[in-house]
Amino acid sequence: MDITLKEAEKVIENAKKKAVEMGLKMNISVVDGGANPVAFARMDGAWLGSADIALKKAKTARYFDMPTGEIGKLSQPGESLYNIEHSNGGLITFPGGIPLKNNDGAIIGAIGVSGSTVDNDHTVAKAGVEAL
Amino acid sequence: MDITLKEAEKVIENAKKKAVEMGLKMNISVVDGGANPVAFARMDGAWLGSADIALKKAKTARYFDMPTGEIGKLSQPGESLYNIEHSNGGLITFPGGIPLKNNDGAIIGAIGVSGSTVDNDHTVAKAGVEAL
Amino acid sequence: MDITLKEAEKVIENAKKKAVEMGLKMNISVVDGGANPVAFARMDGAWLGSADIALKKAKTARYFDMPTGEIGKLSQPGESLYNIEHSNGGLITFPGGIPLKNNDGAIIGAIGVSGSTVDNDHTVAKAGVEAL
Amino acid sequence: MDITLKEAEKVIENAKKKAVEMGLKMNISVVDGGANPVAFARMDGAWLGSADIALKKAKTARYFDMPTGEIGKLSQPGESLYNIEHSNGGLITFPGGIPLKNNDGAIIGAIGVSGSTVDNDHTVAKAGVEAL
Repeated sequence: MDITLKEAEKVIENAKKKAVEMGLKMNISVVDGGANPVAFARMDGAWLGSADIALKKAKTARYFDMPTGEIGKLSQPGESLYNIEHSNGGLITFPGGIPLKNNDGAIIGAIGVSGSTVDNDHTVAKAGVEAL
Repeated sequence: MDITLKEAEKVIENAKKKAVEMGLKMNISVVDGGANPVAFARMDGAWLGSADIALKKAKTARYFDMPTGEIGKLSQPGESLYNIEHSNGGLITFPGGIPLKNNDGAIIGAIGVSGSTVDNDHTVAKAGVEAL
Repeated sequence: MDITLKEAEKVIENAKKKAVEMGLKMNISVVDGGANPVAFARMDGAWLGSADIALKKAKTARYFDMPTGEIGKLSQPGESLYNIEHSNGGLITFPGGIPLKNNDGAIIGAIGVSGSTVDNDHTVAKAGVEAL
Repeated sequence: MDITLKEAEKVIENAKKKAVEMGLKMNISVVDGGANPVAFARMDGAWLGSADIALKKAKTARYFDMPTGEIGKLSQPGESLYNIEHSNGGLITFPGGIPLKNNDGAIIGAIGVSGSTVDNDHTVAKAGVEAL
């Protein structure tokens, strides 16, 4: 089952609200269970280059069904997934991407947030996740 | 001057409303004056492949400051802009992309709609344009 | 032998002057004998999407040592070079690209112009050629 | 607000002058506020491969509104933005890219310089910045 546009808009709304609270300007992207784009918003003044990063974080989180930061630990030099970022047209493997689940725990998509430190990106993404 | 996120959301909202009225499922993309993505929505059940087309229509409309269908007339075999689509990482030159202007007539971005016939795509894009 | 930066700047200056005379806003690109970029200028208000087209016209003209429009005649459906535009990361085969020669007639680069009708693009490119 | 071509030419002129003073051959690129190319110059004998790097440095500096070297510190193995270079069609995150601001401090574009050590690239880029 896939996330609906209505749900994706709620996810983005919650993430935006959190970003405003924290005084941040974010790019927020939501993909569905097929890792295809559902909704996106760039807050006024947010980094232009973060639009693509937000989308790639959302895709990466759904491609491997885990927060992007987890993959990043394994893609460091010497680690098992070293340079996995070269696949799928470019992955982003630092924090800010998180899978989205329905009430039954099934993955229905993912959110990707970019525009600040990776900790802030992750915090805002988590606020998006909690909208569901 | 660039379109704001609030304006872009209004544009998408109007386009979505029109699509619902017409019984259509659309991908709707808005870019700013620099042809960078501002907002995007894929209505439930809309074609997956139309997400990229909607974005490319919006970019194309801003790249050349005219409705995409106008360019398509000139890019036919034997016409003056034949195969212009090979530039800029891929253009889409059939109807559904329209520049967005502010009240002074200055271009502040563009909308791209994809998901039905090109006539329907254009009609829904026009509804988006009229939101400003 | 390659075009120098000084010569390329003269080429662009002449093309710009012609564009101003004709009331046009152009993107003008110059490549050297290796089809590598030497100089580029986008006049204020010129189409954003024409930056890539101007470069691709210049490259195309040097790749095949003839005006881009000549190649376009041969790349039409049914003609011998049909869809040659798919090569070299994207060619542009309508008028506006012309090889640049030194006084001995040797090709030292090419100019590509984009921003108006292909006839105007070609006229402005020719003004650039005449600077040498 | 975007940088004008006249301003971009002044930026490149200043950077070139500095490069000549230092005995260097540089590729110098200027993009506008939307990260779209405005002007470019490759000095005679400068590295061919640095044309693309200069453009990517300028884009990267505008995409994230900071000098490219700052991003490079954070994209090292083990750091928070490791492998961010895989986004946006390829970033360059070593020094040589700097945002360009108007007198009010608003970012109106960016300069990217490539052709020598990264320290020299940065120094020449800075000379370009100071032209405004």
